[in-house]
Amino acid sequence: MSTDLRVSFYGAGQVSGNAAAILRGRAGYDVLGPYARDERDAALRSGADVVVIATTSFLRDVAGDVETAVGAGSNVITTAEEAAYPWANDAEIADRLDAAARAAGVTVLGTGLNPGFAFDALVLTVCGICPEVRGLRVDRMVDLSGFGSTVLRRIGVGYTPAEFAEGTRNGSITGHIGFPQSIRVVAGALGVAIERIDRELEPLFAEEPLQATSLAVEPGETAGFRQRYAALAGGSVWFEAVFTGHVAPGAAGLEPRDEIAVDATPPVRVVTAPGMNPQSGSAAIVANSVRRVAAAAPGWTTVADLPPAFPS
Amino acid sequence: MSTDLRVSFYGAGQVSGNAAAILRGRAGYDVLGPYARDERDAALRSGADVVVIATTSFLRDVAGDVETAVGAGSNVITTAEEAAYPWANDAEIADRLDAAARAAGVTVLGTGLNPGFAFDALVLTVCGICPEVRGLRVDRMVDLSGFGSTVLRRIGVGYTPAEFAEGTRNGSITGHIGFPQSIRVVAGALGVAIERIDRELEPLFAEEPLQATSLAVEPGETAGFRQRYAALAGGSVWFEAVFTGHVAPGAAGLEPRDEIAVDATPPVRVVTAPGMNPQSGSAAIVANSVRRVAAAAPGWTTVADLPPAFPS
Repeated sequence: MSTDLRVSFYGAGQVSGNAAAILRGRAGYDVLGPYARDERDAALRSGADVVVIATTSFLRDVAGDVETAVGAGSNVITTAEEAAYPWANDAEIADRLDAAARAAGVTVLGTGLNPGFAFDALVLTVCGICPEVRGLRVDRMVDLSGFGSTVLRRIGVGYTPAEFAEGTRNGSITGHIGFPQSIRVVAGALGVAIERIDRELEPLFAEEPLQATSLAVEPGETAGFRQRYAALAGGSVWFEAVFTGHVAPGAAGLEPRDEIAVDATPPVRVVTAPGMNPQSGSAAIVANSVRRVAAAAPGWTTVADLPPAFPS
Repeated sequence: MSTDLRVSFYGAGQVSGNAAAILRGRAGYDVLGPYARDERDAALRSGADVVVIATTSFLRDVAGDVETAVGAGSNVITTAEEAAYPWANDAEIADRLDAAARAAGVTVLGTGLNPGFAFDALVLTVCGICPEVRGLRVDRMVDLSGFGSTVLRRIGVGYTPAEFAEGTRNGSITGHIGFPQSIRVVAGALGVAIERIDRELEPLFAEEPLQATSLAVEPGETAGFRQRYAALAGGSVWFEAVFTGHVAPGAAGLEPRDEIAVDATPPVRVVTAPGMNPQSGSAAIVANSVRRVAAAAPGWTTVADLPPAFPS
């Protein structure tokens, strides 16, 4: 009798492919396959122990698929950034799917590297050595060169100044998604009431022709951006999240790294250098979450309530 | 009706005092008090939600106290280093107390900063972004100046070369305790079979008179030590744990810091600088573990199976 964990992937993109390859290389997993968008039933109604949904960033777009997989008795991991803390976007959807998961005895988790680790799980872990936390600052510099062109265009790469301004105004350019979710996971865990989250998104322009894996950037077009979220509690900034992304960091004098600074006594500073690789890191977090999600208590959970993800 | 978590501390030393002070400063906790060794019943038979036992480093010396507290229906956190992975020292005791905890519906956890965080929980968390882990190296440089004289003498500070050699030979000088436990927590979680753990303990001598908080060190006496554990799997070193402790790091050209290096693709390096403070860090991990231990599944658990400790 096999006790392998059966895993199905919905969405045949980069994260699914990489995470499936990781699990295929390990004992203890039976990967049913990454399924494309037109193979919805095969992916979501498989009855797998864990269904990974890696299709979109948005809670509303993924909610029906989560519900279908939960209804088929599967635990769900989704890389939809808004699913890392669904109550931040739509409490009605979040509560309804949480109840459905509890009723079915399965767990739902939204995770990846960011949100899911860099700005939340690792931050909470580091806070463990602090008697109290007065404030947080997390600063990531990420090499965007490995992302596909669809993601690069959505987050804001390859635009003239006018196009970037218009895209951020009309919402077609989002920057990286998921910071309010990470902030609310951390604040909720630490018992801090967030009053407001302010956001800035500034373009970084190429000074020479640059070439990402999937996209060429001309001089004067956006090669990246600097994004800053400031969450206020008690009238002042309690969590500052900074994300600088660039398709050619070296050309811009930037160095990929991750830094967590905790305002505590004594202060704590943790640096990951070089910075976490967005492609392998996301795939690893998803693959390494399969076992912990299969073992978790029913309901829609967050990384604050789960043991660490690690290769197992 | 109060839903405060009732917490009792057995052992009236530094960690207990500091952790109790942390919890007294938070809402949601009712600290019954840190009790000295001669108030055993008050501490262990209190029926508190969580009993913290901070008395000794050794599993055999703490086992009876754990059993008493479990028998009174309390969850238990102990700072006994050997309790971080009790199966490494005495599987019979570990299995018996694990069964007792399950029968009583309570959880037992051995934790602190080290073991419990620096060489295990944080390491496993960092491994989350790795598709696979081929090996680990963790290197801590710790400022020992804040430790009490009893601890300093036991770990190896303040001895002539001959005394140090004799103390390590007869076991009265131990160096820091808990590395085999951390290594086995990590290896067990990652599914790696450890074949052997080799150990070195080298003295570091003072070149000038040095003064720790609790102890004066003369030139030529030990001001610290360098400890190295090498855990072998598949015939080669899989986990190398290095701990350098010194009562005056600056005088010896040392800088307190913590570094985790994961041999993975891509490799990962995480540095905490300045290094984690041993006094506040230990107290914080204990205080921040109270809530997660009260909520955990019954049995003797490890940090591999628990959500992160954070102030809550």
